[in-house]
Amino acid sequence: MKWTVGIDLGGTNIAVGLVDEQYEIVGREKVKTRAPRSASSLAASMARCVNILLKRHGLRADQLTAIGIGVPGVVDPQTKHLLYASNLFLKHVDLVSLVQTHLPDVPILVGNDADCAAYGEYLAGEAKLYDSALMLTLGTGIGGGFVCDGKIFRGGTGFGIEPGHLVVDLHEGVLCSCGQSGCLEAYASIRGLKRLVEKGLANGEPSMMRERFHSQDPAFNTRIVFDAVRKGDAVALRVLEQYVNYLAVGIRTLVVLCRPHIILLGGGISNAGNLLLKPLRAAVLRTTFAGDIIAPPPIHVSRLGNDAGIIGAAMLYKEPIV
Amino acid sequence: MKWTVGIDLGGTNIAVGLVDEQYEIVGREKVKTRAPRSASSLAASMARCVNILLKRHGLRADQLTAIGIGVPGVVDPQTKHLLYASNLFLKHVDLVSLVQTHLPDVPILVGNDADCAAYGEYLAGEAKLYDSALMLTLGTGIGGGFVCDGKIFRGGTGFGIEPGHLVVDLHEGVLCSCGQSGCLEAYASIRGLKRLVEKGLANGEPSMMRERFHSQDPAFNTRIVFDAVRKGDAVALRVLEQYVNYLAVGIRTLVVLCRPHIILLGGGISNAGNLLLKPLRAAVLRTTFAGDIIAPPPIHVSRLGNDAGIIGAAMLYKEPIV
Repeated sequence: MKWTVGIDLGGTNIAVGLVDEQYEIVGREKVKTRAPRSASSLAASMARCVNILLKRHGLRADQLTAIGIGVPGVVDPQTKHLLYASNLFLKHVDLVSLVQTHLPDVPILVGNDADCAAYGEYLAGEAKLYDSALMLTLGTGIGGGFVCDGKIFRGGTGFGIEPGHLVVDLHEGVLCSCGQSGCLEAYASIRGLKRLVEKGLANGEPSMMRERFHSQDPAFNTRIVFDAVRKGDAVALRVLEQYVNYLAVGIRTLVVLCRPHIILLGGGISNAGNLLLKPLRAAVLRTTFAGDIIAPPPIHVSRLGNDAGIIGAAMLYKEPIV
Repeated sequence: MKWTVGIDLGGTNIAVGLVDEQYEIVGREKVKTRAPRSASSLAASMARCVNILLKRHGLRADQLTAIGIGVPGVVDPQTKHLLYASNLFLKHVDLVSLVQTHLPDVPILVGNDADCAAYGEYLAGEAKLYDSALMLTLGTGIGGGFVCDGKIFRGGTGFGIEPGHLVVDLHEGVLCSCGQSGCLEAYASIRGLKRLVEKGLANGEPSMMRERFHSQDPAFNTRIVFDAVRKGDAVALRVLEQYVNYLAVGIRTLVVLCRPHIILLGGGISNAGNLLLKPLRAAVLRTTFAGDIIAPPPIHVSRLGNDAGIIGAAMLYKEPIV
């Protein structure tokens, strides 16, 4: 039996999984990220989690095929250094070498976390029957990855793609967390949805979202919106329509530039399921370039949730080199 | 010596070139497209051009390594049929087989014309020192192609990319020739530039473009705008600024989704050279996601002009299969 370890280095948690050849997570370990802290301290925590997992399963590090780390930032394609991870307050860090000092006997690979999640869904999740898959994670921000020809598509220079920062609307120009304006993330993330709700409530129209919606609450819950949609709340229905239009614009662009066989949605907003998927599919069908000649791809909710990133990271070693 | 033939099947002309191993066009033949006419008639014209060329150079068809056809439309990745070419009024045509009946002794390949142009520039033109290249043709419409890992990137399903139809501005929603609105082509094609000039002149402000600009003229000449820019015409300067902003938005999206090593501009508008390139480069540098960490690619004018499409088509046989 071959074993690998996947590490999902998130802004809140470091989630580690021992993964078998059938892409099943057979053991887990987790620790708080507690950012900001130094890269070497983070690396030591990751290595400790791995060692705890190995011990629990009676394995030695040299019995692992590989360890893969999914990082929330940009990885340099040549040096494999983490160039930038805003949530972790890290810049230009050689995370692989730092972890390697604790675990010298196993190959360690690193990839972008959204890329890893897309790769996990492609290998073992909702996209496993498809030849290519584009995944969008609709969370606080928007991450995304595209698996094409059996490997993660990182573009020409290899710095990786950023579907959250394609432009959907220059004119209205909502400011994005990246400092630019008009990005998909500014409109279709949880933050973007919240903005639409605030706009929708601004004119004083009655809505069941009003009492429940706390604009100061950082853990803004998309359920409030979709609950209201389910109950026919007029403001919520308008918000959903606007939200879907923005997301559909992003998907229009992704379709003409990536041509995926399937599009997967993950992250908090994707929990809305068919309430979101039904109008979204209709909007994409209606607005996609030459949609009558080349049918737009199916749009599904991802299957593996947070496990996709762990599984994808664990399987980075499987990526064809060329 | 190995010879190949490239055919650029355009809306106006069928341009055929005999190409040597150094990617030089050593002989040319041309005939009017005269669309609409039947696919078999077009195929016969293409074959006739090829035979005239061969005869002139004392070659037989079976001495050719391949013939490549660049078509202004969508090619089905499995059947290689031309699915749709609006300028030629053709749908679902097996152009390869039709040409093959006239030229049975040589392999015939087919590709999208913008893809072929990008491939030509990548092999033999302005991008030949780069590992990947994205080309945009700023003409009546906007075509584009992306060469990555030594081959034309056609996305997951293989239907090819359409940079002209990525969305730059949903809100303002200018209608595109494709029937959708907000596409890059609606803003940054010659048609889009013309729209900006008309808007700029609408308030009666004095401009040297006014007398020279004929809104009825289908062959609207971008030179009028850039001449006026050169002379400091206030309206023209504003039009250029707006135009550059729209094009930069499209490039922003292309950078985060394709990560090309270089971006090439072709087509009529690219003749403006530095008048366009200087403000465009500045806008892209200023607006590209994480541009301070990952430097945006250089932006150049393509080198081969219309020959790029012929050379790229001729070299389609060189594309790696996987």
